[in-house]
Amino acid sequence: MSDRFTAVYRVRSDPAAIAARAETIAVEQSVEMPLAAIEEPRVLAQVVGRVEAIEARAENLFEVRIGLAAATIGEDAGQLLNMLFGNTSLHEDVVLHDLELPAALARAFGGPRHGAAGLRGLVGAGQRALTCSALKPQGLSPAQLADLAERFARAGLDFVKDDHGLADQDFSRFAERVAACAAAIARAADATGHPTRYVPSLSGDLDRMRAQIRIARAAGLDTVMLAPMVAGFATAQRLVREFPEVAFFAHPSLGGAARIAAPCLIGKLFRLIGADAVVFPNHGGRFGYSPDTCRALAAAARAPWHGLAPVMPVPAGGMTLDRVGEILDFYGSEAMLLIGGSLLSAGPRLTEATADFVRAVAEHRYR
Amino acid sequence: MSDRFTAVYRVRSDPAAIAARAETIAVEQSVEMPLAAIEEPRVLAQVVGRVEAIEARAENLFEVRIGLAAATIGEDAGQLLNMLFGNTSLHEDVVLHDLELPAALARAFGGPRHGAAGLRGLVGAGQRALTCSALKPQGLSPAQLADLAERFARAGLDFVKDDHGLADQDFSRFAERVAACAAAIARAADATGHPTRYVPSLSGDLDRMRAQIRIARAAGLDTVMLAPMVAGFATAQRLVREFPEVAFFAHPSLGGAARIAAPCLIGKLFRLIGADAVVFPNHGGRFGYSPDTCRALAAAARAPWHGLAPVMPVPAGGMTLDRVGEILDFYGSEAMLLIGGSLLSAGPRLTEATADFVRAVAEHRYR
Repeated sequence: MSDRFTAVYRVRSDPAAIAARAETIAVEQSVEMPLAAIEEPRVLAQVVGRVEAIEARAENLFEVRIGLAAATIGEDAGQLLNMLFGNTSLHEDVVLHDLELPAALARAFGGPRHGAAGLRGLVGAGQRALTCSALKPQGLSPAQLADLAERFARAGLDFVKDDHGLADQDFSRFAERVAACAAAIARAADATGHPTRYVPSLSGDLDRMRAQIRIARAAGLDTVMLAPMVAGFATAQRLVREFPEVAFFAHPSLGGAARIAAPCLIGKLFRLIGADAVVFPNHGGRFGYSPDTCRALAAAARAPWHGLAPVMPVPAGGMTLDRVGEILDFYGSEAMLLIGGSLLSAGPRLTEATADFVRAVAEHRYR
Repeated sequence: MSDRFTAVYRVRSDPAAIAARAETIAVEQSVEMPLAAIEEPRVLAQVVGRVEAIEARAENLFEVRIGLAAATIGEDAGQLLNMLFGNTSLHEDVVLHDLELPAALARAFGGPRHGAAGLRGLVGAGQRALTCSALKPQGLSPAQLADLAERFARAGLDFVKDDHGLADQDFSRFAERVAACAAAIARAADATGHPTRYVPSLSGDLDRMRAQIRIARAAGLDTVMLAPMVAGFATAQRLVREFPEVAFFAHPSLGGAARIAAPCLIGKLFRLIGADAVVFPNHGGRFGYSPDTCRALAAAARAPWHGLAPVMPVPAGGMTLDRVGEILDFYGSEAMLLIGGSLLSAGPRLTEATADFVRAVAEHRYR
């Protein structure tokens, strides 16, 4: 297998700064630490990201191609996303524009099991375009949705999908809805002679989605929908592998999630679902978060909130020993300081530098 | 349980347009269809989003508070994110700024099981701030990482976490790395008397993460890390519930994923992990995608790519019957047209309107 895949970024930058900026991204998306602190020749040669090209695309806009080690991915879709854009997604001046994979890596993921041709074949569509509509609004009962489905299907649609808002809700349990809609569409298909497909929307975690697919299969269905950005790429990948006979629609829900304010996403939502500590990029480090953003994030993490335990803020991202005092004064003692690369840079003095860090925190006198 | 939670958005808008814009978001994040087409009074009263307040925050920037039905969520973290920002994340002029939950809903999620105080207690930190560093670069062997871990721990750090790039890779398998690092840190803790915690990073799908937690527990560890935006909120939520004795770090990886170009995310990545059809917002509808973006997305979905099957593009998001011809000419026949609200708006004529749609597609003569 070729040992690199390529991430293509669009970066807003001053022309004088783009070369250094590109190197920074290559490091961020691979080893995430100062190269000077890496002693292992194999890591330097095989794992550190490589800037392959920089090309101007517009005024102060550059396309940067970075080769990343395929060995960092294995065959894990979540890890792919993590290596492509995990940290760099936090830089507001960078867009992940494209990716290129060696063939072996692409084949390892496998792509669509049915694809466009398979969907076309399912509904016997010949060469024409396919048709689809959606069952909504959420809030209707299974019987009401089934009635709607039957009315859609009787018109000869190819696919009738759930609105992505339909989950497993009190007003319309997945099992009841799917049984009712599948039966309704089967009746319609018998009447029209056209094999209309009902496409239920999956929700919840991997186990719940598995159970939902089994319910769908038992109702005679062969096509489902999920939102990979909500479900997680690895969840989607696993379901595709476990149910090769099923076709999957992907919904773009959350495809624009960057624009969740950090205090909300990291300070509140991550806390809500049970994180005990939240790592985030401190101001003045490698990322663009402002002091105001960091202050709001920490406040959200700690604020009284319906009796939920506070979550520990962990400011990070390029912190250095000489900033410990300032960071502590900023966050107070109810914080966890995370310093990585700066300590690693100490090389043979790593233990001492770390001890300095430990001591600086222990002995700090708050302003 | 109070029946509404509140999503707070920041919206860039002309002052004259903000009231209508806010209503549009309230509909998008709830029923996602024209209100005039909803006949069920219960849905109108209980499920449709409600604009609770609009307040100017700066020139052409408004804060919009929208009440959404708690019944649409149940207790599913993925569905929460879906309802908070699923589709609206695709609008470049909207930021999800905050959320407010009724107490019962917050308690149903449960928040941190250990929280800041629990982490503090784990390492006997008293009132001082906590300390942490990270094991990297990826590419090192388990023995090299363990050596690093021991050197960190001997300095008396509270937590030593994996870099979020460390997964289950050939050069450092999770099981070997965790066993080696846990032993190294235990040796150091014996020497220092300080109960330093090693925090391995989880990767893969729910089943793999479960197995990784069991490996960590068997090695005597009680703290792990994951990236909720990569793993999926529901995955994180499930693990927190299944392993209440374990403390979880959340990593912000992918927290800025909005800035993945749509052709890349939806046309390539969703295809890569096995989607057979990809729904996306067509230009000229309810979302801001340009014709160029849509063209590139469809091209990516269909282009030859290492033998992967093409994925079916499904342009959607406010499409209407009168646009069928234009959409077909734009995408060609290798597409699936998705029309939802516009057909639903036909009310009693739904079947006829749908049949018109079916026919328009069947009979279209491409330019």
